[in-house]
Amino acid sequence: MAIEIPRAVRWHDDAVRIIDQTLLPGEYKEIDLVEVKDVVEAIQSLRVRGAPAIGIAGAMGLAASLKADLQLPAAEFRARLSGNARRIRGARPTAVNLAWAIDRLLAAAEGLGDASNAEIWETLRNEATAILEEDREMCRRIGENGLKLLHDGATMLTHCNAGALATGGVGTALASVYLARERGMNVRVLATETRPLLQGGRLTAWELSRAGVDVTVLADSMAAEAMKRLDVDLVIVGADRIVANGDVANKIGTYGLAVAARHHGIPFYVAAPSSTFDFELASGSQIPIEERGADEVRRGFGRQTVPEEVPVFSPAFDVTPAELIEGIVTERGIFNPHELSELRENLRGPGSRSAALE
Amino acid sequence: MAIEIPRAVRWHDDAVRIIDQTLLPGEYKEIDLVEVKDVVEAIQSLRVRGAPAIGIAGAMGLAASLKADLQLPAAEFRARLSGNARRIRGARPTAVNLAWAIDRLLAAAEGLGDASNAEIWETLRNEATAILEEDREMCRRIGENGLKLLHDGATMLTHCNAGALATGGVGTALASVYLARERGMNVRVLATETRPLLQGGRLTAWELSRAGVDVTVLADSMAAEAMKRLDVDLVIVGADRIVANGDVANKIGTYGLAVAARHHGIPFYVAAPSSTFDFELASGSQIPIEERGADEVRRGFGRQTVPEEVPVFSPAFDVTPAELIEGIVTERGIFNPHELSELRENLRGPGSRSAALE
Repeated sequence: MAIEIPRAVRWHDDAVRIIDQTLLPGEYKEIDLVEVKDVVEAIQSLRVRGAPAIGIAGAMGLAASLKADLQLPAAEFRARLSGNARRIRGARPTAVNLAWAIDRLLAAAEGLGDASNAEIWETLRNEATAILEEDREMCRRIGENGLKLLHDGATMLTHCNAGALATGGVGTALASVYLARERGMNVRVLATETRPLLQGGRLTAWELSRAGVDVTVLADSMAAEAMKRLDVDLVIVGADRIVANGDVANKIGTYGLAVAARHHGIPFYVAAPSSTFDFELASGSQIPIEERGADEVRRGFGRQTVPEEVPVFSPAFDVTPAELIEGIVTERGIFNPHELSELRENLRGPGSRSAALE
Repeated sequence: MAIEIPRAVRWHDDAVRIIDQTLLPGEYKEIDLVEVKDVVEAIQSLRVRGAPAIGIAGAMGLAASLKADLQLPAAEFRARLSGNARRIRGARPTAVNLAWAIDRLLAAAEGLGDASNAEIWETLRNEATAILEEDREMCRRIGENGLKLLHDGATMLTHCNAGALATGGVGTALASVYLARERGMNVRVLATETRPLLQGGRLTAWELSRAGVDVTVLADSMAAEAMKRLDVDLVIVGADRIVANGDVANKIGTYGLAVAARHHGIPFYVAAPSSTFDFELASGSQIPIEERGADEVRRGFGRQTVPEEVPVFSPAFDVTPAELIEGIVTERGIFNPHELSELRENLRGPGSRSAALE
């Protein structure tokens, strides 16, 4: 069955076409990015979000931003390339995929020696396209592997948005839901709204319902009750970082869901490309947890919902320990979080994206 | 130490003065209710909320609404009494305290035989005042009993608002925090914002910070992480109904907090007056759980945060099983939820509010 899956980032001629995610679900608007300042602004203000999607948009944006400069003298063109790369790379310093993608384009350009501006530009555009296409392929493979966990009529609970809007393809946590839908399977998704920024209520609900998937939104506080009453078969969430002992950093609220899932005997899975693995860190306690601005909780909806003088505890991520995780779904298979060393060996092949990240 | 504790409901001459809780924390506004239509509107639109506070406001409102009718012929006055009682009693049919308080006033009036309008009115006003005063006393006693669970420097996590704004006095779950503060003890409170209606972020944070209590707000999804990282000593929440086997119905999200508390070895307490006990029901599975309107989640802050066509799962309450509850703090002591029969015997005394509710 052909279904409608949004494309968070794609080419439109030589511009980067993105969906402005700050307007969803109220308004669907695509915008085309060409100038470097617009690329930076779109990333900083979360018009495009999700670590894979940011990397792709940054790489494509770097190529797009240089098209108008092809007539410049070679030295000036190269200076423009390196300046634009620096600006885009710094737009969101915590997203490792962005730096990785920009560096990959710079390396490709350097490999060309004294090529013409046009040759360099072609290479940048092709490399950005390759990053996009590789991500699309990786999402499909994660979906194929995750599909083994689903059955017709299954109910899956997810958190935040690890869907098409967060990647170049069909997402990570939601990838298998889309593949199931394409094959005519009925999978029901329960999407937690995900305070403070509501990516579950705004984005996951939007992209799944558009694809004809049966999706229901619940406030985060209702997840344990849903597990008790709604026959939840499994939980699948995305990941921001997975470390050597199998601990997983992801959107705040993930840990509480894993605890509730364990209490109800519901298997808890994480879906992520192997580029999310960080074998440099031994355990989750070493992952730095970013504290977000209080205003996301205090007046996240344009209205004051917490008194101005009252402090807010608002970590952006939490760490779910490996012992609460049934399996990690990657493009290379489903791994037990305690057996990641096997995956690590797998990733040592030269030139792979994952190896480069080690 | 004298501290500022808001009074949700009180007399102002012969009018019912309430704090308009729909405007908090942005604006503090007291309004005086006299006419029956205003009493009903204030209860229905949650300007006054919390089961005990609603009962008190309803009873006082019934008396207030009849002051202007003292010159009517006796039969007309009595008809007005019974008509106003019916209207107020039906304002929120699920709040048992409201029906109980109105019925108590009607019974007192009936006991007077063929008294004058003025005598009846005096009795109504006195009975309403008695309900208010009894509630204030009950809150203090719950606070005294709960104080045994706290120590200087303790950190308590709570959910929703079971504070002064929900009662005639110092609240239930928050009662011991106020008493600790009066004695110069430092107790830190972590208040979950409590989606969908944000009573934690809006009301608990407001009343505690006003009293000089160290309070921090967190989104519901952050509670498990707070338990992991912030040295939480105990959880205390309120209750809407407690049944014979010790299961507790309370604001949605309570159950998930109890599960997370158990996972972290943190004791979980419920604080409530013994009038909250419903010995007619054997277990929590018999408690009807109200499903709220989807719009509280979908556009609870005036902005659309879930697509219009996507269904929402939004139970107003959940049931926490007795085995997750360390103790139930009442005005008569702290009870093990498995030993409520002892309390039941205690409540069989004639004329007590609790006995009347059995």
